[in-house]
Amino acid sequence: MIADKMKEMVENSSAIRAMFEEGKRMAAIYGAENIYDFSLGNPNLPAPQEVEKAIRGILEEEDSILIHGYMNNSGYEDVRCEIAESINQKFDTRFTEDNIIMTVGAAGGLNVILKTLLNPQDEVLVFAPYFGEYRSYVANYDGKLIVVDPDTTTFQPNLEEMEKKITARTKAVIVNSPNNPTGVVYTEDTIQKMADILNRKQKEYGIHIYLISDEPYRELVYDGIKVPYLTKYYENTIVGYSFSKSLSLPGERIGYLVIPKEAADGELIRKAANVATRILGFVNAPSLMQRVAARCIHAKCKVEAYNKNRELLYTSLTSMGYECVKPEGAFYLFMKTPTEETEFCEAAKKHNILVVGGTSFACPGYVRIAYCVGYDTIVKALPGFQALAEEFGVKKAE
Amino acid sequence: MIADKMKEMVENSSAIRAMFEEGKRMAAIYGAENIYDFSLGNPNLPAPQEVEKAIRGILEEEDSILIHGYMNNSGYEDVRCEIAESINQKFDTRFTEDNIIMTVGAAGGLNVILKTLLNPQDEVLVFAPYFGEYRSYVANYDGKLIVVDPDTTTFQPNLEEMEKKITARTKAVIVNSPNNPTGVVYTEDTIQKMADILNRKQKEYGIHIYLISDEPYRELVYDGIKVPYLTKYYENTIVGYSFSKSLSLPGERIGYLVIPKEAADGELIRKAANVATRILGFVNAPSLMQRVAARCIHAKCKVEAYNKNRELLYTSLTSMGYECVKPEGAFYLFMKTPTEETEFCEAAKKHNILVVGGTSFACPGYVRIAYCVGYDTIVKALPGFQALAEEFGVKKAE
Repeated sequence: MIADKMKEMVENSSAIRAMFEEGKRMAAIYGAENIYDFSLGNPNLPAPQEVEKAIRGILEEEDSILIHGYMNNSGYEDVRCEIAESINQKFDTRFTEDNIIMTVGAAGGLNVILKTLLNPQDEVLVFAPYFGEYRSYVANYDGKLIVVDPDTTTFQPNLEEMEKKITARTKAVIVNSPNNPTGVVYTEDTIQKMADILNRKQKEYGIHIYLISDEPYRELVYDGIKVPYLTKYYENTIVGYSFSKSLSLPGERIGYLVIPKEAADGELIRKAANVATRILGFVNAPSLMQRVAARCIHAKCKVEAYNKNRELLYTSLTSMGYECVKPEGAFYLFMKTPTEETEFCEAAKKHNILVVGGTSFACPGYVRIAYCVGYDTIVKALPGFQALAEEFGVKKAE
Repeated sequence: MIADKMKEMVENSSAIRAMFEEGKRMAAIYGAENIYDFSLGNPNLPAPQEVEKAIRGILEEEDSILIHGYMNNSGYEDVRCEIAESINQKFDTRFTEDNIIMTVGAAGGLNVILKTLLNPQDEVLVFAPYFGEYRSYVANYDGKLIVVDPDTTTFQPNLEEMEKKITARTKAVIVNSPNNPTGVVYTEDTIQKMADILNRKQKEYGIHIYLISDEPYRELVYDGIKVPYLTKYYENTIVGYSFSKSLSLPGERIGYLVIPKEAADGELIRKAANVATRILGFVNAPSLMQRVAARCIHAKCKVEAYNKNRELLYTSLTSMGYECVKPEGAFYLFMKTPTEETEFCEAAKKHNILVVGGTSFACPGYVRIAYCVGYDTIVKALPGFQALAEEFGVKKAE
């Protein structure tokens, strides 16, 4: 008796759930400390001290009705102002509070902007491997997901294929850099070329194509790498941000959209996104956490811990002979499987290692290893990876 | 370039926005304290002391990663358990954590359950006057809103007309008691009769009809009145609750759905609602506030203050000769206008009084007066209501 659309979704999600249950089952048998669960993108770092301090400060200094009350559906004006200013400082942009809509995480923000933009059958391009939820988000508004095949050498977006797949029905392109699941950061050169193609295609078809930049991992980058701010490269860019990873607050559901007024119909999009926030049932981003985000705008979780994990994991796996591109951001490593993906995942389980197959990201033959875990978990899992390398005849690098 | 569906919504919402702007404009001219704004359902009472105490306790006693981290999309198990037990205690039910899904407020919960249930063109019945957002929520999933005309004598649901409007495509009936905008509580007799009709119609058409009970005002009742718990009267009931009003936390977006396993396909609905929570971008209800809700399950804002407002407003208006049903719950009074609704609203503004026309609730010829304001605001607005009564020739009650 449930909706037809939901039936399929429930079946698909059982697979993920089955894995989750398997993890719990294994933990019960072997002890949680002996299960090396790399399957979830759940930050293992606590929120920075500033978060607790901010909450206490707000409770002491601000009025209860303001802290917990309704505000404009877009969020508190002072919070949006603070956010706009911090973006301007970092990226030399010119945003104001009118360009910011506070959202229930990045997932909420993506739903708001897709609800705002999509007519049924409108096409939305994504680059494999991509975060599987994009499929559902686009389907929510009867859009058509168009998948651009991966460039498995660099995992930069395959621009040649992107260009071919743009049609008169293309409404948006979603990019995610630093990327889940590869950890790759799209280069300035890539972004510039992408912008050129999009501009050309907009003219060719007489349409507007919105570049939706999903940036929950923006702050998690290593080796001093810079993540280009896309509104500076392409006018019709909309940014979705989340504090889930930078402040280790994934359960709190707090993020924002940036809608530049230079974007085509920017003002109308802003108004409609405000309405979409309301009618989708978000109403507004959680109020206390909006205020926390503003107070913690310069705070950050201890990214160095993720970097240590990354170095250990990357160095160890590649020295065992596994193939992967070195992640420059986020907390994922996307590794080529030395055998068929499912076989590898099953074999890994025998070593108490849980990873997610690349098929979940439309890129079979790989696994995603989420290294937002304790350093010890990686240390203890390495012998398992070594055994798997031997089992599947991975050849050591010379 | 925005979605066609959204264009209309933006235009409609400009009307509400215009009123909001008008309020701000008036406040700037006359001073906020001289504007009697009865237009918003935004609680004026602070959250009870227990909320702040709970937040501080959680920060001291619980682990940061647990407090702010991801959990099952349905919410923390211990929180759901606490909620199920409190419902069982109050209403002699038999729920467990498996029947509870934590939601981003009641608005989030309604979207989740409608996404879960509705196929395009499925019919959803509502009783005028009804909370205008239902129209958008049903439209989000391409459902068809069927409005049952009001019984303006009692503002109990018009069951005779409900029965006539049920068809083979009826999927759900939404009820809201205590009611926004009338403040009426549906009687046990009404509920029993409604259940009988629904059961008969289910059999007649061989379908399941879900009764969705939207209960953000459940705790705000006066004169010791009891609000029947609908799962006890009709098997296919799904309850949507919010802590927005009981704990004065509307900005925090925290509520829950109750999905009884006795409901037809209850288990499948629960699974699908879990998925819908994720894919609509809620992901989960805000984590800290879930934990706060569990610790404050027996707390309540000072309902007595609303009651004082209600008594003053009802007694004064009726003694001036205005007609209205005495509200038994929520913080709204629905008053018949002595002249055409828009004319009355405009005239009221001249006395610095802001109210919402009944047309917004599909019940023209009335205004909603939200009395979740300071007592003084009512005292100071009464001369304005008196002047309006004289202006439109309202006859004093004998």
